[in-house]
Amino acid sequence: MPSPIRPTDDVARALACGLMAEARFAALAVVMETGAPLVTRVAFGLDPDGGPISLVSSLSIHTQALMGNPACSLLVGEPGEKGDPLTHPRLSLICHASFLRHGDDGYDALAAHYLRDHPKAKLYISFSDFAFARFEVSAGHLNGGFGKAFHLKASDLDQG
Amino acid sequence: MPSPIRPTDDVARALACGLMAEARFAALAVVMETGAPLVTRVAFGLDPDGGPISLVSSLSIHTQALMGNPACSLLVGEPGEKGDPLTHPRLSLICHASFLRHGDDGYDALAAHYLRDHPKAKLYISFSDFAFARFEVSAGHLNGGFGKAFHLKASDLDQG
Repeated sequence: MPSPIRPTDDVARALACGLMAEARFAALAVVMETGAPLVTRVAFGLDPDGGPISLVSSLSIHTQALMGNPACSLLVGEPGEKGDPLTHPRLSLICHASFLRHGDDGYDALAAHYLRDHPKAKLYISFSDFAFARFEVSAGHLNGGFGKAFHLKASDLDQG
Repeated sequence: MPSPIRPTDDVARALACGLMAEARFAALAVVMETGAPLVTRVAFGLDPDGGPISLVSSLSIHTQALMGNPACSLLVGEPGEKGDPLTHPRLSLICHASFLRHGDDGYDALAAHYLRDHPKAKLYISFSDFAFARFEVSAGHLNGGFGKAFHLKASDLDQG
């Protein structure tokens, strides 16, 4: 069977970067203590360097799982209300998470940056259980629609 | 800190069952050979008994991961285009996957059932790499919006 994966080109790179730039939420996959995966919805944004971030509560099961095991995956690229959702482009990212908490170096600058794109987060960003999760991306899988699959390296996703 | 989880009631059960009944696609989390999780978008439907199913290609990385490790998770409940997506209800399911392939007992009946809700799948359901994934649900996590979280048992999700 021939590989269904196409060679990565600039069109694929631009599509992937556009999906990340537009996303305001994502599906997050983590591995729980049991070893089983869990997928939940989380907020999504980009830091000033173009790296994915989220604002998460330590009360949530996904954050508790990430604190035990930082390996995770993010899915961005939401279908609209029309058309076949499986033909809509989406991007899966393979990541490791780390946290930036109230009082950490750089927290205030990242919070100010995040609130520009996510103004409703003002309601809860100051709560003591909320912190930023930062996602270091090691690879991506772009599905541009039926038969249009690409494997991306971290360098393919640089916004610059 | 008090538990953020509310006692499960009939309103929560009905909300969760409604999210499953309405969903035509889902985010699927699997664990890859490396042990890292991966989240992708897949088709979603219910079998005649109300159990979650998908139609998947064996060429996809999520299907290959599931064939090696059937532990997985599904997220349903898509935000519309308006409002804060993080206040929109969604349901995470903890599952084990098994496959029903062309020629297996019950395949033809399930295919006929599935195509009634997913008519566009006629284009590829007969391809040799496509098969049904069936998801046995062991638990659910319902997020009905900020501060409205419930832990559900499999019996809370019975459609009957």
